[in-house]
Amino acid sequence: MFDIQQYLREQRLLVENGLQRYMMPEQGDFSAHIESMRYSLFVGGKRIRPILCLAAGRTVCAAPEIEEKLLPAACALECIHTYSLIHDDLPAMDNDDLRRGQPTCHKKFGEAEAILAGDGLLTYAFALLSNPDLPGPETATRLQLITVLAHAAGSQGMVGGQYLDIASEKKTISFDQLKTIHRSKTGALITAAIHMGALAGQADQGQLEALTRYGDAVGLAFQIVDDLLDVTASTEQLGKTAGTDAQQGKATYPAFFGEEKTRALAKEAVASAQKALASFDERAEPLRVLAQYIYQRTC
Amino acid sequence: MFDIQQYLREQRLLVENGLQRYMMPEQGDFSAHIESMRYSLFVGGKRIRPILCLAAGRTVCAAPEIEEKLLPAACALECIHTYSLIHDDLPAMDNDDLRRGQPTCHKKFGEAEAILAGDGLLTYAFALLSNPDLPGPETATRLQLITVLAHAAGSQGMVGGQYLDIASEKKTISFDQLKTIHRSKTGALITAAIHMGALAGQADQGQLEALTRYGDAVGLAFQIVDDLLDVTASTEQLGKTAGTDAQQGKATYPAFFGEEKTRALAKEAVASAQKALASFDERAEPLRVLAQYIYQRTC
Repeated sequence: MFDIQQYLREQRLLVENGLQRYMMPEQGDFSAHIESMRYSLFVGGKRIRPILCLAAGRTVCAAPEIEEKLLPAACALECIHTYSLIHDDLPAMDNDDLRRGQPTCHKKFGEAEAILAGDGLLTYAFALLSNPDLPGPETATRLQLITVLAHAAGSQGMVGGQYLDIASEKKTISFDQLKTIHRSKTGALITAAIHMGALAGQADQGQLEALTRYGDAVGLAFQIVDDLLDVTASTEQLGKTAGTDAQQGKATYPAFFGEEKTRALAKEAVASAQKALASFDERAEPLRVLAQYIYQRTC
Repeated sequence: MFDIQQYLREQRLLVENGLQRYMMPEQGDFSAHIESMRYSLFVGGKRIRPILCLAAGRTVCAAPEIEEKLLPAACALECIHTYSLIHDDLPAMDNDDLRRGQPTCHKKFGEAEAILAGDGLLTYAFALLSNPDLPGPETATRLQLITVLAHAAGSQGMVGGQYLDIASEKKTISFDQLKTIHRSKTGALITAAIHMGALAGQADQGQLEALTRYGDAVGLAFQIVDDLLDVTASTEQLGKTAGTDAQQGKATYPAFFGEEKTRALAKEAVASAQKALASFDERAEPLRVLAQYIYQRTC
């Protein structure tokens, strides 16, 4: 029986250690700026994207060193995710004071400082992926990882999704538009995490396609659950302000379908994610259980 | 006799065409967001960083196709430069309404939209450099270009410099601290432009070192002249609000040394830049004249 709690603890520790090792230290002329980046990076977080990346690598690759080889890429994913939270929380965006139960970056360090902390983390992700002194796959694959991450994090992925999300506030949007926002704002980076793990693990075409289907389904489940949590969980449980979606007039799954149907849709997405893994052996067990875990965060 | 005006016209056209070709078009779900990026990218600009990159490549490489091969990298540099202007102009940073004689990105599209336009351009720079379908040097050199750019644009380069610049407002700082700010905020990206051109042109170690010395000196000249222009030029001439440095209590070369001595220091930096090129043949002529041109912007 696979123990998901123990697995998550171990993988989180691996990622935390990687971030400590690979993130620049608070030294030198730029130490105050680096402090603001490290604050947001180490304030907490489930490290889901790096863990999905490592689990995807393990699914297609039996070599014991695959996690070590993937760790800088996994850390790059967390840098991108953290920067996106810092910028999303800014007064001009979602204007949030709390994140992971702590003051947001701009509350702690100031607005200009938070913009720059985000810019620094975003840029550092690509420094990590391209650094020849860090573990990683061979050169051509490193370039592929950069392409995948830049596309998923960029204007036709996460950044574009955040733009659409903000543009949609207090407007009536269609369910198709909501799906586009979810897919780009949240789904793209989750799918990229899995795609990057698969590429570094030298997945063949069939494996890549199966893992992409898994990533799309898990990304969808994740976003549906996020929408649900905003309605059902307390600020204390979330570590960020609850109920902000309804307050900002945002379209969400519960707003379209109500809570019960939304729960059913999340369950359906988890089932498709697990179905996509049918052809893999027991090395895919973490991915199977992670899909379930994402659903159980709330339901 | 080398005609700098004609050279700049031709190179600017080459860069503009590259940006038109390689920048994503205003289409699809994200067209409004892409419009905000394209606005800032095409609102004007001297395209100095891309031109320096192309000129450095030409200096070490005789192959006729070197400019074509370097064009995506040159465009990536302009994406980084443009994003930095968008974020620097934000209300939380320098709070500027005018850039290149036109409304700044946040004035035109809104603050959240401008933050995302910057994030999108920054991310796109790395998409351009890693895209295997675009011209570029071979795989290992592409990774080097990404490393150089990520380092120069990041927390120990441009972003870190902007942080220090903001932190230094209305404070007394030493001349050493001013040099650190200049070197990181402006110098690093200019040096990177030249470094990237040299790497793609397969410079040997001696050539790389000479071009790095050139880059450092030209970066310094550039920043000294920028400080001078803020004092001596009008808002109309600058295309951005003049006199903001003194207004914001920023340390500058003229504040430390007065105008005359500052001019002499700029001239000295240009002379070192040209001296660094002594071992190159006539293919370095554009770089020689560009150093002179940077000085003549004002003096």
